[in-house]
Amino acid sequence: MHAQTLLSCGLLLFLVTVSNGWLFSHFGKKYQETDDVSLWPLPQKYQTTTTTFKLGASSFQIVHAKDSSAGPSCSLLQNAFRRYFNYIFDNVKKHRANRDVDQESDLQLTELQVQITSPDSECDGYPSLKTDESYRLSVDQPTAVLKASNVWGALRGLETFSQLVYEDNNGAVTINKTDVSDFPRFAYRGILLDTSRHFLPLKVILANLEAMAINKFNVFHWHIVDDHSFPFFSRTFPDLSQRGAYHPYTHVYTPADVKMVIEFARLRGIRVIAEFDTPGHTQSWGKGQANLLTPCYSGSTPSGTFGPVNPILNSTYDFMTSFFKEISEVFPDAYIHLGGDEVDFSCWKSNPDIQKFMVEQGFGQDYSKLESYYIQRLLDIVKATNKGYLVWQEVFDNGVKLKADTVVEVWMNNKVDQELQNVTKAGFSTILSAPWYLDYISYGQDWQKYYKLNADTQVHVWKENPDYKHEMAKITAAGFHTLLSTPWYLNRISYGQDWQGVYKADPQSFNGTAEQKKLVIGGEACLWGEYVDATNLTPRLWPRASAVAERLWSDESVKDVESAYTRLVKHRCRMLRRGIPAEPLFVGFCPYEYDGL
Amino acid sequence: MHAQTLLSCGLLLFLVTVSNGWLFSHFGKKYQETDDVSLWPLPQKYQTTTTTFKLGASSFQIVHAKDSSAGPSCSLLQNAFRRYFNYIFDNVKKHRANRDVDQESDLQLTELQVQITSPDSECDGYPSLKTDESYRLSVDQPTAVLKASNVWGALRGLETFSQLVYEDNNGAVTINKTDVSDFPRFAYRGILLDTSRHFLPLKVILANLEAMAINKFNVFHWHIVDDHSFPFFSRTFPDLSQRGAYHPYTHVYTPADVKMVIEFARLRGIRVIAEFDTPGHTQSWGKGQANLLTPCYSGSTPSGTFGPVNPILNSTYDFMTSFFKEISEVFPDAYIHLGGDEVDFSCWKSNPDIQKFMVEQGFGQDYSKLESYYIQRLLDIVKATNKGYLVWQEVFDNGVKLKADTVVEVWMNNKVDQELQNVTKAGFSTILSAPWYLDYISYGQDWQKYYKLNADTQVHVWKENPDYKHEMAKITAAGFHTLLSTPWYLNRISYGQDWQGVYKADPQSFNGTAEQKKLVIGGEACLWGEYVDATNLTPRLWPRASAVAERLWSDESVKDVESAYTRLVKHRCRMLRRGIPAEPLFVGFCPYEYDGL
Repeated sequence: MHAQTLLSCGLLLFLVTVSNGWLFSHFGKKYQETDDVSLWPLPQKYQTTTTTFKLGASSFQIVHAKDSSAGPSCSLLQNAFRRYFNYIFDNVKKHRANRDVDQESDLQLTELQVQITSPDSECDGYPSLKTDESYRLSVDQPTAVLKASNVWGALRGLETFSQLVYEDNNGAVTINKTDVSDFPRFAYRGILLDTSRHFLPLKVILANLEAMAINKFNVFHWHIVDDHSFPFFSRTFPDLSQRGAYHPYTHVYTPADVKMVIEFARLRGIRVIAEFDTPGHTQSWGKGQANLLTPCYSGSTPSGTFGPVNPILNSTYDFMTSFFKEISEVFPDAYIHLGGDEVDFSCWKSNPDIQKFMVEQGFGQDYSKLESYYIQRLLDIVKATNKGYLVWQEVFDNGVKLKADTVVEVWMNNKVDQELQNVTKAGFSTILSAPWYLDYISYGQDWQKYYKLNADTQVHVWKENPDYKHEMAKITAAGFHTLLSTPWYLNRISYGQDWQGVYKADPQSFNGTAEQKKLVIGGEACLWGEYVDATNLTPRLWPRASAVAERLWSDESVKDVESAYTRLVKHRCRMLRRGIPAEPLFVGFCPYEYDGL
Repeated sequence: MHAQTLLSCGLLLFLVTVSNGWLFSHFGKKYQETDDVSLWPLPQKYQTTTTTFKLGASSFQIVHAKDSSAGPSCSLLQNAFRRYFNYIFDNVKKHRANRDVDQESDLQLTELQVQITSPDSECDGYPSLKTDESYRLSVDQPTAVLKASNVWGALRGLETFSQLVYEDNNGAVTINKTDVSDFPRFAYRGILLDTSRHFLPLKVILANLEAMAINKFNVFHWHIVDDHSFPFFSRTFPDLSQRGAYHPYTHVYTPADVKMVIEFARLRGIRVIAEFDTPGHTQSWGKGQANLLTPCYSGSTPSGTFGPVNPILNSTYDFMTSFFKEISEVFPDAYIHLGGDEVDFSCWKSNPDIQKFMVEQGFGQDYSKLESYYIQRLLDIVKATNKGYLVWQEVFDNGVKLKADTVVEVWMNNKVDQELQNVTKAGFSTILSAPWYLDYISYGQDWQKYYKLNADTQVHVWKENPDYKHEMAKITAAGFHTLLSTPWYLNRISYGQDWQGVYKADPQSFNGTAEQKKLVIGGEACLWGEYVDATNLTPRLWPRASAVAERLWSDESVKDVESAYTRLVKHRCRMLRRGIPAEPLFVGFCPYEYDGL
C-alpha cells in the first residue's frame, strides 16, 4: 500500500461529543487529548469523561463481586489481582514516594469489583478456540465494576483497567470515569517462537508470555523442535533430546519446564499449542531415533545423509503413535500443530526402497502422493488421541484429506488472497501469518516505497520529523539525488518503521463471501529463530507484534496509522515499565527508560 | 561485491607447518583446529603449538615484570589485571566447581609478567592518535611475558592473552605455547553512539565501552547532542540541558557522569571524542540559549520556527567561545568533533537580516559561503583552546580553510572512493564511516545480491546450512520461483548476515598513492539513534561492530569471510560470557547463553 492511501485513512476518524459530558469515541482520537492514557489494543467500544478519580495504594482494592461465581479460592484471579495491583502501584513506589490520596476534594476509587457471570467461572480450566473473552468495564465512583462470563474475559478487562490508570501531574494515581464494552475481533491471536534454531531460556519465554498478555494475545505457538535441535525432553523417547538437543542438560526443556510454561500461560489466558513438524524439518529427530529418517542414496549406495521421516516403514507409525500419545498428554490444548511444510523430495527419490514402494502404491513419480500418504496416516494417529490439528498450508495445497475442524495456516507471502479464498471455499478454518513474519527486518531501504508522498504532508514533516534533514542526507548519500528536491517526501511515520506494514495487513481483505470470511479465525506473528536468541528476541518482537495484536483484537475500522503511532509510543513505554525491553519506534524517550542492557 | 568473489577469497589462506613443531599461521586457519581458541581481531603475527599449559586460579598471577617501568602503583594496570583475571577464572567458577591444576603431569603456567619498556609508562595519561599500541606476547612455561612500550599496548596484549585461554575437555583452564607480535593497522578505530535521538543510560554506555575494549576499539565518538535533545550538562550554560534535554534530571549527563565515562574509557585505552555539531543539528540548543538560532521567516514576519545557528551575530561567537572553552576542559582528548554536516539553507534564505548580511559580505546567493564564514570563525575559536578537530566531509567539500591536522570524516555512501582521493590529495587525514552505518539493518532482502553463487558450493550448503529448505521456501513464498531450481545457491554465510558487507569494506581500497593511503588513519562504526535505545542498542551493535574492529586492527590480507565467521561465532559467545548481549550471527548456540532478556 502506498503512503497516500495510508495518510488518507486519517479521515476515517470520528469523534462525537454528547451534551451530558460523555465523550464517545469509537477509536483513537480521544487519546491525543488525555495525554497519559493509551489503550492498546483499542477496545471495541469505549466512552470516557473528564471526571477523574484517585486510587490510593493503601485504600484501593481489587475484589470479587458478591454475586460472582468466582471467589478467593480462584487462584488464577487472585494471581491476576496481584499482578495488576503491582502494575498500577509498584511503578509509582519504585520511582517516587507514593503520594496517597489525601486531599478531601479528590474523588476516590476504592474498589474494582470483578464479577464472573457464568455459573462456571472456568477458573481451573484452559482457554480454547471457543473461549468467550468479552468483558464490560464501568469505572465510576466509588466502585468500578468488571463483568465477564468467565475468568478469561476478566483477565482481558483487568489489563484494560490497568491501562486506563495514569499518574496526574502531581504523581497521583488517577483514572477517568469510563465505560468499556469489549471483545476480540478474532478468536485466535498468536505468537510463534522458535526454540530449535536457537534455544530460548525459560526466562525469555515467560517474559514474552507476559508481553503477550499485555497485548491480549491468546495463543503461544511453540515451534519447539526442528532440523537444528530437539530441546523437548520426551519421557517416552529421552534420546531425542539427549542426542538431538544442542546440549542434553543446558539446552533442554524438561517436563517441569514445559508445565511451568503451560501454567504461566494459562494464568494469562494464553493457550500453548506445540508444533511437532513432520515429515520434513526433522534432522534433529534422527540423532536420537534410529531408522526414523529416510537414508539418502548416492547412486546405489547410502550417502550417509538422511532426508525426511521414512514413510514406508511400519516402525515409523509405531513411533509416531507413542510419541503423539505423550504429546497429547503433556499439552492440554485441544490442538496440536503438525507442521507439514517444506518437504524436500530429493532424498526420497534417491532411495531404492522408496522407489519400490512408489511403484507398489501406484504413485508413479508423484512424490506429493507419498507425502500425502504419510500425512494421512499421521492425522489418523493424532485423531485417535482426540486432538484437533493445525497444519501449514502445503498440507491443504497437496490435497490431503483433513478433518473438518482442521485449521490451515497460510504463511506463504505470495498469492495470499487466492490461498485464503481456496482454503475457506473448501470450508476450512484458517489463520494468517504471511504478512507477519517478524524475523524479516529492515531499516534504510523501505523508504523507496514511499517516495511519492502527497504534498499535503509538508507541514507535518517539517514540524514533527526533527530528523528529516539527517534522513534526507543519508538518502542523498546513497546516491538518490533526484528525490531530494522535495523536502516533504519523508515523514515521521513513513520511513524505517516496518511496524506499519504489519499493522495495515488485514486477514479478511481477500475476495470472499461473508461465510468464507468467518472461517478466518485469526492470525499470528512468527519470529523464526535464525537470527534471534536471548540477546535480542524480546526487543525485536515488541512492539512490532503489538501492531498484530491490535489488528487481531480491535474493530476492522481501527486502522489509522498516525493515531496508532501516538498510542503505540505510549504502550511501548508502558511495556518498559513492566520490565519488557520493547524497542523504540522512532526518536523520543520514555519517562522511565529500560534498566537493562 | 558478488559472492563469487567472496568465496574465492578462501583460496588466499595459507598455513605452513615447520619441522620444529611450531605452526606458523598468518591468519585464521589454525583456529579451526584448536576448537576452543578464537582470536578477534586477528593479531598481525601469531605462532602457536600443540603444547598446552594449565592455569590454576589459586596459583596463576598477573604481575609486573621486574624491569617494567610500571609497578603496583599503576592503578590502570592493576585494574586491568583484575579485569582479565576475572574473565579468565570467574566464568569457570560461576558455572562449575573450579578444577584447579592438580595433575603432576600438567605443565603449569604460573605467571604472566607484564613489562612496560618505555621510561614513561603513560599510566596516568590518556591515549591519543599517536599512541603506540603494539605489544609482544610470549606464552611459555613457567612464565608468559607481555612486553609493550606503554600501558596502552599492554591493555591490548592482556585482551589477546585472555582470548588465548580456553577450557579443555575436563574444564581445566588451558593455554597453548604461543608467540604473538601485534600492532594495529590503523590508529583510529572508533564507535559512534548517539545520545540525542534517544538518551542512553550510563550503564549502556559503559557496557559498550567494555565491548569496545574486547574488540580493541580505541575511540568512543560521543555524538552527545543534536536537534532532538541536549543531554550534556554544561556548567557555563546549565539551561541548555535544563530546557533542551528530554528531562532535566533523568535524561542528562552530569559532569560526574561524563568524568566516569572518560575514566572508564581511559582504563581501557579508549579516547572519548565528544561531538558538538553546529551550525545545523542544533534545534535543542535553541531551547536553552536565546538568540542562538536563526529565526525563520514566513514572508516578512518571523514564522516562530528556527533554523541553524545564527552566523551573523557577535553574540553567537561569544557563546561559542565560552562554550568550547568549557568543552575543551571537560574532555581531555586533543580532538573535538565539530560536526558541520547537513546544513539546511532554507531558513537562512528566509531571514531578511541574513539576506542583508549576504549582500554586505558579497556572498551573492551562495549560502555555502555563509556556512564557511561561520565554520571558519568557529575553527578559530576552537584552535585558540589548543584542540585539534574532526569534521564531517561537507566542511571539506565546501572549501573551508582547515588546520593541517584536521581529520575529515567521510560518511556519504556515494562516490566514497572519489571523496577519499580528494581529501587525501589535499593532504588531510581522514577516517571512513560510510560503509559502517550500523543503524541500517536488513534481513530477508539482501539474498538477491547473492543469487548467482558458484556451483562449487553445493556440498557446503547441503551439509552446513540446515536451513536451506526453509530459507528457499521463504523466497519461493515471496514469489521468486525461478531461482528455486538450484538448491546450492543459498549458503550459510551469504544470506541475511549483513556483517559480511561490513567486513569486506576496506578504507584503503580507493585509487591513490601510497602517501595518500597513509592519510587514511582509520574508521568508525556509527550507530545513529533513531531506532535504538537501552532496549536494543547493544545486540544491534555487536557483533556487527566486531567486523569493523577486525578490518581496522588486523592485516589487510585478513579478509576471508568463512574463516572470519568461524572465529566470530566463538568471539560472540565470549562476549556473552563477559555479559555483553551480542546477537547471534546465525543458527546455533553458545555453551553459556545470555542470562538476560
